[in-house]
Amino acid sequence: MSERVNRQVVLTRRPDGLLTDADVEIVEAPVADLAEGEILLEMVWLQMDAAVRSWLDEGAGYLPAVRIGETVRSGGMGRVVESRHPDISVGQWSSGGLPGWQRYAIADGDSPLVMTFPADLDALFQLAVISSPAATAYFGLTDLGEVREGDAVLISAAAGSVGSVAVQTAVNLGADVVGIAGSDEKCRWVEELGADTCLNRRTDDLAVRLKELRPGGFDIYFDTVGGPILDLALRRLAIGARVVIVGAISMYNESGRPPGPSNYLNLINKQAKMLGFQGLAYVDRYPEAWDRMGQWKNEGRLVYRTDVSHGLETCVGQLNSLFTGTNIGKALVQVGDDPGPGPY
Amino acid sequence: MSERVNRQVVLTRRPDGLLTDADVEIVEAPVADLAEGEILLEMVWLQMDAAVRSWLDEGAGYLPAVRIGETVRSGGMGRVVESRHPDISVGQWSSGGLPGWQRYAIADGDSPLVMTFPADLDALFQLAVISSPAATAYFGLTDLGEVREGDAVLISAAAGSVGSVAVQTAVNLGADVVGIAGSDEKCRWVEELGADTCLNRRTDDLAVRLKELRPGGFDIYFDTVGGPILDLALRRLAIGARVVIVGAISMYNESGRPPGPSNYLNLINKQAKMLGFQGLAYVDRYPEAWDRMGQWKNEGRLVYRTDVSHGLETCVGQLNSLFTGTNIGKALVQVGDDPGPGPY
Repeated sequence: MSERVNRQVVLTRRPDGLLTDADVEIVEAPVADLAEGEILLEMVWLQMDAAVRSWLDEGAGYLPAVRIGETVRSGGMGRVVESRHPDISVGQWSSGGLPGWQRYAIADGDSPLVMTFPADLDALFQLAVISSPAATAYFGLTDLGEVREGDAVLISAAAGSVGSVAVQTAVNLGADVVGIAGSDEKCRWVEELGADTCLNRRTDDLAVRLKELRPGGFDIYFDTVGGPILDLALRRLAIGARVVIVGAISMYNESGRPPGPSNYLNLINKQAKMLGFQGLAYVDRYPEAWDRMGQWKNEGRLVYRTDVSHGLETCVGQLNSLFTGTNIGKALVQVGDDPGPGPY
Repeated sequence: MSERVNRQVVLTRRPDGLLTDADVEIVEAPVADLAEGEILLEMVWLQMDAAVRSWLDEGAGYLPAVRIGETVRSGGMGRVVESRHPDISVGQWSSGGLPGWQRYAIADGDSPLVMTFPADLDALFQLAVISSPAATAYFGLTDLGEVREGDAVLISAAAGSVGSVAVQTAVNLGADVVGIAGSDEKCRWVEELGADTCLNRRTDDLAVRLKELRPGGFDIYFDTVGGPILDLALRRLAIGARVVIVGAISMYNESGRPPGPSNYLNLINKQAKMLGFQGLAYVDRYPEAWDRMGQWKNEGRLVYRTDVSHGLETCVGQLNSLFTGTNIGKALVQVGDDPGPGPY
């Protein structure tokens, strides 16, 4: 056994609505020895994504639900502190697959989900843009959304980690963007990112404003929220519109059957499509999105924000900030002391 | 004024649920004189389509709602009995555009919606297959559904006018079809049309049977019904599935907001699409569908049924038969005495 002691946030019961501290427990356990091919990561960053909440419910998701007693699953980034893999060295960064909310994680260095990076990686850009928003925003808008110059694009949760990259992606590809966000502060940021307008979903009458802004409707609706905003957007489609379904953050904490979008029949009237975006379908093409994002970043056409809290004890609250609307930019929890280069 | 007296079924109030005789009135009126370019049709057949009911509600449909006092709008087929159009002769058949529930209809011979046909047209094949199911089934399955040989295709309302043509289209294109219909009698017919299996939605446990029949899910779901069957089907999608939304016959008589498909998020898990089918988008390509249907008919690979009632007084009941599930095949009302050639 290693001398290292792990700390893990494990699920003790299924949450009803938002995850609470009563649904999890922080446990300590010795770190196991590595098998051949494995690496040990000291986690530095844990990613707070809406999907983390969805993995806690039993159901027909694309991954099995986290079991009671298991570490809460999430993405992250850690330093390799031990390696029994011939091609991976101590000091490198690694994603560890889906290492979850813990201090140390053992990963199979040969797993396609375990990505390793050089020691001087800009880990925050990697986490805030590349690791998930990049592919979602880029392929969601290009491959599914078939975005064209001049398209009217509506993006919900536009100040979120995916939304903010989607806004800039659409703008960089020549589209006219209207964003929806949850506060005036968020809206200001979304407009700084290049959106023509950003509507505050708490204070603007979305039905009225969307019609005023685009009487002919939107060519693309990029949806991460579901619920009433999806239903409203379905009434404001242009002919041939593409509704890209990325998630439904408004619904992940609902008990029972969430309501479906009752205006879906407008897809018929508008000869429109509703397209489910699944990142796993694009694994082979990820580098295309990454290259584009890196290029835009270097040209100053892609910016990002992070919202960092510190310590495993803050995971629950930081995850919930995604749903309560208090978060701007990529939500992360820092659990390690070695963040490497970059502006923190 | 012409000597002819018209009889028309006019809307006197908006229906609440199914259309009733109390929502309409049959009125008599002299037939107006024709203007240059117009033709007068003596209607022979009126088409009973689910869309007829949807046009009676105010809302965001692709056509404006029928106004109170107006003739109920529907498709149909009549004989030209007067013509002031240089290229249209007395005795020809004409669709008259959307002539509605009346004995005589005046139509603009130059309108692209007014199709005229030779006097010896097989009018029932035209109405039962060509005029609407052909394009819906053919382009819905090929262009939107991208049907391929061996695809698992699920078709609801499979004994309906559109469904029965869709079943045969899918079978003729090499797909494996499971149908859903509302009675054992209907199911027997659907299986005669070439479906591997037809489930009776009133007596079969669809959730269980669909899973048993296709553990890997369906590549295409061709949906004319909406409601709970759409929601069930969304749980039974194969990776990359296409859900072709043609209509929602289960919902057209609902007051208030119909429920949406709450399982739409499975589109993400299955990298699937939901595609709204709008026939008007295919006007230029209709002949492609018609040629295919005519060829299949000649080869004995396409059959159809009609369900005919007689007289304007039967329109309301005949329309409702679409929703109450008592109808098999194309529902028509015969209002004229000159049906022309064909087996009636």
